[in-house]
Amino acid sequence: MSKHKVIIIGAGLAGSLLAIYLAKRGIAVDVYESRGDIRTEGFSGGRSINLALSDRGIAALREVGMDEYMLAEAMPMYGRLIHSPTGEKRLLPYSGREGEYINSVSRGGLNAALMNEAERYEGVRFVFGTRCIGLDIASGEAIMDGGQRVLGDTVIATDGAGSAVRAAMMNGVGRFNYSQSWLEHGYKELVIPAASEFETLPASVSPETPRFVTDADALHIWPRKRFMMIALPNFDGSFTCTLFLAHKGDVSFEEISRGSTQINADQPNFDPRKQRESAARSVLEFFEREFSDAVPLMPTLVEDFFNNPTGNLGTIKCFPWNVGGKALLLGDAAHAVVPFYGQGMNCAFEDVRVLDGLIGKHGTDWEAVYKEYGELRKVNTDAIADMAEENFYEMRDATADPVFLRKRELETRLEQNYPDYFSKYSMVTFREDLPYSVAKEKGNAQDQLLMEISRSMASQNEIDLEVVMQRIENLSASV
Amino acid sequence: MSKHKVIIIGAGLAGSLLAIYLAKRGIAVDVYESRGDIRTEGFSGGRSINLALSDRGIAALREVGMDEYMLAEAMPMYGRLIHSPTGEKRLLPYSGREGEYINSVSRGGLNAALMNEAERYEGVRFVFGTRCIGLDIASGEAIMDGGQRVLGDTVIATDGAGSAVRAAMMNGVGRFNYSQSWLEHGYKELVIPAASEFETLPASVSPETPRFVTDADALHIWPRKRFMMIALPNFDGSFTCTLFLAHKGDVSFEEISRGSTQINADQPNFDPRKQRESAARSVLEFFEREFSDAVPLMPTLVEDFFNNPTGNLGTIKCFPWNVGGKALLLGDAAHAVVPFYGQGMNCAFEDVRVLDGLIGKHGTDWEAVYKEYGELRKVNTDAIADMAEENFYEMRDATADPVFLRKRELETRLEQNYPDYFSKYSMVTFREDLPYSVAKEKGNAQDQLLMEISRSMASQNEIDLEVVMQRIENLSASV
Repeated sequence: MSKHKVIIIGAGLAGSLLAIYLAKRGIAVDVYESRGDIRTEGFSGGRSINLALSDRGIAALREVGMDEYMLAEAMPMYGRLIHSPTGEKRLLPYSGREGEYINSVSRGGLNAALMNEAERYEGVRFVFGTRCIGLDIASGEAIMDGGQRVLGDTVIATDGAGSAVRAAMMNGVGRFNYSQSWLEHGYKELVIPAASEFETLPASVSPETPRFVTDADALHIWPRKRFMMIALPNFDGSFTCTLFLAHKGDVSFEEISRGSTQINADQPNFDPRKQRESAARSVLEFFEREFSDAVPLMPTLVEDFFNNPTGNLGTIKCFPWNVGGKALLLGDAAHAVVPFYGQGMNCAFEDVRVLDGLIGKHGTDWEAVYKEYGELRKVNTDAIADMAEENFYEMRDATADPVFLRKRELETRLEQNYPDYFSKYSMVTFREDLPYSVAKEKGNAQDQLLMEISRSMASQNEIDLEVVMQRIENLSASV
Repeated sequence: MSKHKVIIIGAGLAGSLLAIYLAKRGIAVDVYESRGDIRTEGFSGGRSINLALSDRGIAALREVGMDEYMLAEAMPMYGRLIHSPTGEKRLLPYSGREGEYINSVSRGGLNAALMNEAERYEGVRFVFGTRCIGLDIASGEAIMDGGQRVLGDTVIATDGAGSAVRAAMMNGVGRFNYSQSWLEHGYKELVIPAASEFETLPASVSPETPRFVTDADALHIWPRKRFMMIALPNFDGSFTCTLFLAHKGDVSFEEISRGSTQINADQPNFDPRKQRESAARSVLEFFEREFSDAVPLMPTLVEDFFNNPTGNLGTIKCFPWNVGGKALLLGDAAHAVVPFYGQGMNCAFEDVRVLDGLIGKHGTDWEAVYKEYGELRKVNTDAIADMAEENFYEMRDATADPVFLRKRELETRLEQNYPDYFSKYSMVTFREDLPYSVAKEKGNAQDQLLMEISRSMASQNEIDLEVVMQRIENLSASV
């Protein structure tokens, strides 16, 4: 067996995939995970149930032969299906080209499959129920809850947005650059069950996809300017819905679940049952007013709303990601992003692939690997973090704006007619060969131009595609 | 005595001035300070010795009657005195108007005077040698090292860039936005002694200011693109110099103090005395090459270089600054800035003045005071933080650039001829009535225009001031 050993902190998606990559290079790996084994103990909350797997993630899975396997149980989504307040639906395709779609996959299923694959290698060991609480910056030892210290050649921290290794670097490494910023909006997961769960099937069930009570081949969006709901299909026939809404203020989680202000604990005849009923009514009224076509598909809406936690949405950036050759932050631990570009997992998988390429170049000279990794990668993870925040506003506001809809229509026609044209969304999602930073720069320039054109033209018929493409090519020359 | 009591954490410049303001409103104040009393125990390091007091700071001192007193021992500085590598000097005035200058003041002297003034009020109490280590977010108690808990109406934290109260908010307040970012450059303080310390007086001593060995009425700058040195006069005849230089890399603190690589601890005949001599020679050579005209004025250069610490330069931003009405961050604790605009203290003093105005408006409804304070002030402290970072590059690089020098000359002429024209520097430094955010926005637009004009004109004679002013007024209309 190899004389090299890497300590990975966190057996989530990034850590499990990294274990496979390192094992294939003959490097021994111990993976420490604070939770139990999800394969035997089930998958517990705090993280979203399904995720959009797209080309960057697939490319990273492909290199270790896991792509076909993963896609077998994925649900392809070909576009955004926009639900208007009155229940009309309109599909905005993700691309004008065939074969360009994203895939709704189960986080738990994917994670379990990656752990199973990793364990096929002799040098890989998972240690569950062991929480890493820090890093000894001087010695490079990972410190576990209870005091156990673990030393390998190096530590790679894939312990997520709340990384304990990053916290140790923040306290122990001089001049550590760090930022955390939070959206005013939080999120709550809800569910549209599979058709089999309904006693009376809703009329919306299609004979082509009888397991699902609404369209199964798109990402549903209910854009409402100040808030929105989305839904992604699951392989079992259900959908996971997510409501994005301000935590506090005028229309907010706090406000819609407060119920009647006539019934509160300060009153002499306060009745907690009445208070709960009033709050439930208030939530249901909000959904009926805003998402009327979804409510009949959500029989457990009110229970789910009050039982499921409200999550926060934050962006974390930091640098440097490494402590010499002793430790490296990777994935969400290094750069947590908001979920609105569907790139959190895809970016972490790309992290792994880029890191592996540099191990190919520098071998186990970890300091050299980490240094070049940071130099190459930081500009790209910053770019996707920024684009993900911007896309929140696009999904929530712009998908309900006629000019934006014309612009998307124009982009789709360009993609249908010009194989070389890629929208910003397509560059991020379908072009694993383009760094995120390039997608951002080119994409922003294109977006500005196409919005300008769409604002000045009332209909697509007025637009000469050939002229538009010429202007886009001129942009590219100057970017 | 008042039934209201405020707990202030930190008896530095901001905390001491705040104590006076609150005392004048009849509010009792306990000020907890981790260090000893500088008035009896002397002033110890880690913070710069002198500071540039300008109009925003003076305005805040004026409201409590401390301005005249402070300015009595201040050294007026009328401009930047630029030293070329060959020792030529050139003055760039701070303003084209009379009466617009900045003041070099002693940090220790100012701090002691503010504490003395605060203690004249019956309700003010300073508690020295008592370090605050956190805040109980739920109860609003400040927690001291040793476990003592202190409760007032509210806690105002003026405990500086390393604020313990801010750290408690970061851990205990949900969705706390925070960032810390560091320059690659560090700083080291050095000294040019008073004339009386020299056995043989240097030829540069002017008969008009016989206590000083070089010009006493300007801020000296030795701009060298990748690094720079500055010097500010002190009332006692000395100057405090500060070298700003990269921590690591090609020309850096690490590199210039390494000495000969032929002499190091790995060698069999390693001689620590020889190593020290070699390092000293290397530092001296660097100064002789880069700051040749300053070296004869710095007799203790080499000892100071090795005895004095190398400091870090960072920007800290966070929000919200308050925990309901229980606690507020103010000054560096809320927004540490790099020192290149000379505004750190001035901004903190302005913080105090703005806060006091809101206490005038809302009384001791601390939550209302803090909420409006954050809404009003955050955009301005962000603006000065950004301008301070930008000014580093201007001082280090641009003051050695002929186009920039022409632009400053043009600005000075504009200020001489048009009483309504204020450069960005003048708006930040001399216009206490303009918020920092306005100074930044207007100033950047002006800078862009004047740099453009100065690039296209080889001499001032080609420029029609009237036309330039018209273009500036058009800018203002559109900003």
